[in-house]
Amino acid sequence: MAITVVGSVAYDSIETPAGRRERCLGGAATYFSLAASFFTKVRVIAVVGEDFGRRQEAVFQARGIDTRGIEHTAGKSFFWEGSYLDNLNEAKTHNTELNVFAAFEPKIPEAYRDSEFLFLANIDPVLQRRVREQMPDVKLVAGDTMNYWIKDHRAALLEVLKGLDVLLINETETKMLAGNNNLVQAARAVLALGPKALVVKHGEYGATLFHKSAPEGKGAEPFRAPALPLEEVIDPTGAGDSFAGGFFGYLASSAAAGELTPAAFRRAMFYGSVMGSFACERFGTERLQQLTRKEIDDRFILFRELTHLD
Amino acid sequence: MAITVVGSVAYDSIETPAGRRERCLGGAATYFSLAASFFTKVRVIAVVGEDFGRRQEAVFQARGIDTRGIEHTAGKSFFWEGSYLDNLNEAKTHNTELNVFAAFEPKIPEAYRDSEFLFLANIDPVLQRRVREQMPDVKLVAGDTMNYWIKDHRAALLEVLKGLDVLLINETETKMLAGNNNLVQAARAVLALGPKALVVKHGEYGATLFHKSAPEGKGAEPFRAPALPLEEVIDPTGAGDSFAGGFFGYLASSAAAGELTPAAFRRAMFYGSVMGSFACERFGTERLQQLTRKEIDDRFILFRELTHLD
Repeated sequence: MAITVVGSVAYDSIETPAGRRERCLGGAATYFSLAASFFTKVRVIAVVGEDFGRRQEAVFQARGIDTRGIEHTAGKSFFWEGSYLDNLNEAKTHNTELNVFAAFEPKIPEAYRDSEFLFLANIDPVLQRRVREQMPDVKLVAGDTMNYWIKDHRAALLEVLKGLDVLLINETETKMLAGNNNLVQAARAVLALGPKALVVKHGEYGATLFHKSAPEGKGAEPFRAPALPLEEVIDPTGAGDSFAGGFFGYLASSAAAGELTPAAFRRAMFYGSVMGSFACERFGTERLQQLTRKEIDDRFILFRELTHLD
Repeated sequence: MAITVVGSVAYDSIETPAGRRERCLGGAATYFSLAASFFTKVRVIAVVGEDFGRRQEAVFQARGIDTRGIEHTAGKSFFWEGSYLDNLNEAKTHNTELNVFAAFEPKIPEAYRDSEFLFLANIDPVLQRRVREQMPDVKLVAGDTMNYWIKDHRAALLEVLKGLDVLLINETETKMLAGNNNLVQAARAVLALGPKALVVKHGEYGATLFHKSAPEGKGAEPFRAPALPLEEVIDPTGAGDSFAGGFFGYLASSAAAGELTPAAFRRAMFYGSVMGSFACERFGTERLQQLTRKEIDDRFILFRELTHLD
């Protein structure tokens, strides 16, 4: 089933212990789309400036991603500059320029309207909600957010959470959103805000899926997917968005096969971790651009061996 | 097969967000023994002072643990005081009194000599080595250590590592010992120091088993056991030692069945995590004292559900 994703398509300048890259193609919607494109049809809604040209567009098109919803406008694209010199698990932001994103009014192309899945990548919750309202008939809606929106735009974010099937955020954000430092208690508090399921990303330790308890208390056990211990992390930028793309892309492909089951959610967690691990292996989206489905499936098997008793 | 363990039997004063306990029974060898006793016969070598009486001895005896190697001497038992008020993952030490441990000369009772398994809990590596040398014929030797010995007693520690089959340490200690901040690279460096296998404990994120590569490169894939996301951590003291007890105790029981296989090592990782999770549920050794084998096996099944795709 097709996924429409709204979020940033951007340029990133990144410094890690492995080196530095200037203005490489980035943005949450970019990583998400590339990762999800290995599993299902993906359609992007975003805004870019005059600095986004054919070469960048070609990255999406090479993966069959529909870019008709990427609006081109006067000005410069969203720009982020950050480093991971002290800690590969946490970016230090040096500069954020919203640029064309400051006045973004998401418009949904007619050709996107039959998308069954909707992903609201990390952007202003006001925009997330606007997109959600324009696509009332989707089958499954998932979303991401970040500390900035949790702290300073809580009311708008809470409105978004009410309409989500799955929220994917990291552990720090989960605890901040819940105001609770215990993961299990925080997850329960976040689920009470609306989402039916919560994926908490733990960076190099993987991710945990929490479900809202069914009335009979069944099917509510958490599920933990590992991350692959990596010999070398070149650049963790976009790992979380790539996780979301693998997770949601796999779910969309499962749904197409009529299998949106608890087992499909567990496999989706593994595919999320798989895509996140690939994203870290090169700078920016380089690794995702060169990936094959066979590499993905081989790594899925590796993840199974990493965690399964037999 | 029987395990002989050498390490501290001590008193701990502990403060956590859940409360405070004064001078409860603790020490690495205590937690290890209690946890391992659910799987196999355990024999302790330690030293205690006049403050260690029948009531403390009874805790070991209730679990069938052989205490003939616990030497009683004039003075006070080892004492540790610490808190976890800011961070449940890391103890803040307020006071350490070696007391009778300062002049400890481990002696191995004749009745312990046929032990097939030896565990060197976290004590001075000079003592660890002395015990190891007195038991040259054991089948499997595992050990633990801590940042203090890694930093200030490196030469003595390196001698111990040469004789170990399995080293169990936490992630920070692994990176410190290797002088390398990448987990995979650090694990390889530590394995080059002697141990055939390395268990890296990640606290609330579980633990990873690394094997020395076989010449043909097979069987060297890491294995990750989860930790159970706990609703409430009452007291993390001894969780790592309880992990070691579950891990090594299960291995000893597998060896008795002639099954010291890679699959047995993976199950041992799960039993380690299971015992570590129980240890956190009450203060000190309270939970381990009240545990049943059925609770352990039920939680093993829960850990499988937490991580397995089907």
